[in-house]
Amino acid sequence: MRDLLTIARDANAAKRAVAKLGTNDKNRGLAAIADALLAHTDEILAANQTDIENGRAAGLNDGLIDRLTLTESRIAAIAEGCRQVAALPDPIGEVLWMRKTPGGLDIGQKRVPMGVIGIIYEARPNVTVDAAALCFKAGSACILRGGKEAFHSSLCLTRLMRQALRAEGLPEDAVNLVEDTSRESATQMMRLNGYLDVLIPRGGAGLIQSVVMNATVPVIETGTGNCHVYVDAAADLDMAQRILVNAKCQRPSVCNAAESLLVHRDVAEAFLPMARDGLAPAGVTIHGCPRTVALLHTAVPATDEDYAKEYLGYELSCRVVDSLDQAIDHINRYNTGHSECIVTRDYDAARRFLDEVDAAAVYVNASTRFTDGFEFGFGAEIGISTQKLHARGPMGLTALTTTKFIIYGNGQVR
Amino acid sequence: MRDLLTIARDANAAKRAVAKLGTNDKNRGLAAIADALLAHTDEILAANQTDIENGRAAGLNDGLIDRLTLTESRIAAIAEGCRQVAALPDPIGEVLWMRKTPGGLDIGQKRVPMGVIGIIYEARPNVTVDAAALCFKAGSACILRGGKEAFHSSLCLTRLMRQALRAEGLPEDAVNLVEDTSRESATQMMRLNGYLDVLIPRGGAGLIQSVVMNATVPVIETGTGNCHVYVDAAADLDMAQRILVNAKCQRPSVCNAAESLLVHRDVAEAFLPMARDGLAPAGVTIHGCPRTVALLHTAVPATDEDYAKEYLGYELSCRVVDSLDQAIDHINRYNTGHSECIVTRDYDAARRFLDEVDAAAVYVNASTRFTDGFEFGFGAEIGISTQKLHARGPMGLTALTTTKFIIYGNGQVR
Repeated sequence: MRDLLTIARDANAAKRAVAKLGTNDKNRGLAAIADALLAHTDEILAANQTDIENGRAAGLNDGLIDRLTLTESRIAAIAEGCRQVAALPDPIGEVLWMRKTPGGLDIGQKRVPMGVIGIIYEARPNVTVDAAALCFKAGSACILRGGKEAFHSSLCLTRLMRQALRAEGLPEDAVNLVEDTSRESATQMMRLNGYLDVLIPRGGAGLIQSVVMNATVPVIETGTGNCHVYVDAAADLDMAQRILVNAKCQRPSVCNAAESLLVHRDVAEAFLPMARDGLAPAGVTIHGCPRTVALLHTAVPATDEDYAKEYLGYELSCRVVDSLDQAIDHINRYNTGHSECIVTRDYDAARRFLDEVDAAAVYVNASTRFTDGFEFGFGAEIGISTQKLHARGPMGLTALTTTKFIIYGNGQVR
Repeated sequence: MRDLLTIARDANAAKRAVAKLGTNDKNRGLAAIADALLAHTDEILAANQTDIENGRAAGLNDGLIDRLTLTESRIAAIAEGCRQVAALPDPIGEVLWMRKTPGGLDIGQKRVPMGVIGIIYEARPNVTVDAAALCFKAGSACILRGGKEAFHSSLCLTRLMRQALRAEGLPEDAVNLVEDTSRESATQMMRLNGYLDVLIPRGGAGLIQSVVMNATVPVIETGTGNCHVYVDAAADLDMAQRILVNAKCQRPSVCNAAESLLVHRDVAEAFLPMARDGLAPAGVTIHGCPRTVALLHTAVPATDEDYAKEYLGYELSCRVVDSLDQAIDHINRYNTGHSECIVTRDYDAARRFLDEVDAAAVYVNASTRFTDGFEFGFGAEIGISTQKLHARGPMGLTALTTTKFIIYGNGQVR
C-alpha cells in the first residue's frame, strides 16, 4: 500500500508524461480501460460483493447499498462511459486568442492540463472510473479518495485501470487511489499544497463542507442545491404545474431537483391547489408559510430552516410572496447558488429574474432538472460547481483544465 | 467604526445594487472618485503624513516608507488610474455563447459580477483606490484590508471614495475598508464564508502563505515569482545577455524579475562571462553551482535554498545544465509558476520549453518583465495569479467576474 505522500509524489512525477500524451494515446488508454472492465467483470463483481456484505453488516440503508451495488449492466455502462469520454473533443492545446503587441511580441493564451487533480467522493464505485477517465482525457493525473464502504470495488477498478494503462505503455500513475480511508488521510489530502492543483469534493453537504472548511489547496465547491420554482403573477399555470412536478418529483434525490416553491399572491389561490394535486401522486409533503397553510389545509407550517433545506426527498417548502422583488430576495437569501426557475409570460419579470437571481443556472419556463453537463451539451460532467471561481454550474472537460500565456519574441526587453 | 461582520453584511446588501449599475453609472462613479481625490489632495497628504511619521517612529526602512508615501503627483496618478479603468470596456453582460438544445432550450453562458470581493494587501495606499476602482467597474462590492502602516491614508481615501459615490446617488457600500487592523480581523476575513465570493491577497510571500493556509473562502494566490532565464545551446548570446540584464536589473523588486539563470553547458564558457559583465554595473551577486563558480571566480557557491529563493534584489542564482530536459526539470522543481524564459534559435527547443514548462507565462526570446496586465493588453491589473484555478497570470477586469448559465424555455421538462 502506497501512503498518501508517496501517491502524491508518484502522481506529480507522472503528470508531465500525462500532459504530453496526444489525443490518440489518451483515447487508446480509455478504450483499453473500457475493455479491461468488461473482460474482468466477474472480478469486479466479486470485490463489490465484499463491499455489499460489509455494508449490510454495518447496517447501511437500502439507498446506500443501491448506490454501492455494481451489476453486469452497470459495469457495461461504466465502460461505455469511458468510450464516450474518448469520443469527446480534446480540450488541450486550444489557443483561446493570440495577438501581437505594439512591441512585436505574439502573446496568446493556451489551454493546458491542470496537473494533478484530487477527487474526494462517497461510496459510489462508478465515480472511481468516471473521474479517472475525465481527468486522463483532460491530460492530468488524478488522486482518488472514495468512501470506505466502496473500498474493495474502487481498489479493484483502480488496479484494472492502472494495468490497462501500463499494458498500453501509458503512465499508470496517471490514476491513483488513496488506500488509507481514515479521516486523517482525508484531512492530509486537503492540505497537499504543492502536490494538488485542485481538489473537487463530490457528495453530500457534510463532505463538501468538511472540504471547504479544512482544505488549504484550491477547491471547487460542488453540488448542494436548494433550488426554487417561482410562479409569477403572469405565469401559465398549467405550465407551472408541469415544471413544478417535474422539478420536484422526477428524481428528488439529486441536487437539481426543486426544494422550494414561491407563488405570487395574485395567483396563489388558483395555483396552490394545482400544486397540491400535481404533487399528491408522489406523496410530497408541503411545508408552507401561513398564507399557504390557509389555502392548503394539507400543508404543514414551514420553519425558517425549511426554506434553507435541501430535502432530497418528497418534501417541498412553499411561500406566497407579494412581488417579484420579494421572490428574488427570498431566493438570494436561501438558495445555494445552484438552479432557479421563474414561470412567467411577463417579459420584464423574466429579464429581471435572469439578471438579479444569483445562481449558477437561471431558467425561464423550464425545469431546474436540466442543470447537467450532458443536458448542457458538454458530453460529460465531473460535478456541478456552486462557487463562482473557475467554473460555475455543470463542469465538463474544460473545467478540469487551466491556461498558460505563451509569448513569442525576438529579443524584446522592457 | 463598523466591525467586520457589519461591513460584510453592508457589502452583501449593496452587491445587488452594484451589480445592476449600467456602464455609464459605473464610469460616472469612477470619474467622481478621481475628481474627489484631486479636490482633496491636501487632506490625503495630511493623513499620509501621519502614517509616515508613525512609520518612521516604528523604524520602517526607507523602502517601506517610500511605498507608503503619497505625493501630489502620486495622487494625480491614482486619480488618472480611476479614469483609465472607466475607459476600459465593461466586462459585464457579455454572452460567451448561446445555443439551442435538441429539446428547444436556448442555453447560454453570461458574464456576471462576482458579488463581494475581498482584497488583503500591505502598506500601499494606492492599492486602496486601484482595487476599489477595478472591483466597482467589474460590478462587485469590495472589502479592503490594507496594512496598518497605511491605515490613515487608506481611511481617508476610502472616505473620499464613499462620499463621491454617495454624492452621485451610487451605493457607497460598494467600497468598504476594514478599520480593525488586528491579526484577528485578518483571520476572520479569511473565513467569511457566505459573505466573500473570493479573497485576493496582494503582497509578499508571507502574507500570501498566511491567506492560503488559513482561508476557508475561495482564494486566488498571487504574486511570488521565482522566474528563470534559460540560455539554450542554440541561443543568440548577445540577445541572451540583453534579456538577462533586463529581466534581472530593470526593476529587481517585482515578481516578474528574473531570480535564476540556467545555462546550457555547451555555451557556459562563452556566456557566463557575458552574464557577469552585463550584471556587474548593477552590482548583482551571482550564487553559482560548482561549474559556474569554476568559470566565474566572482560567483559565490549556491545552496539549494538559493535555487528556490525570490531575491527581489541584486542577486541571482545560476546553474549550468547538461540539457534542455535538465533545464525544464530544474524549472518545474524550483519555480513558483510565474514567468519563465528560454533564449534559443532552435525550433524544437522553443516548442518543448513552451509546452513542458509549467508556469503562468512562458517566453521564447523575450524578458520575463513583460508579465503584466498592461503589457498583455488588459488595460489594468489586480494582481498576477500563480495558481491554476479561475485565473492564471496577469488578472484584468474579467478575472474579477464570474459567469452564470441563462436558459430560455417554453415549458420544457425532463
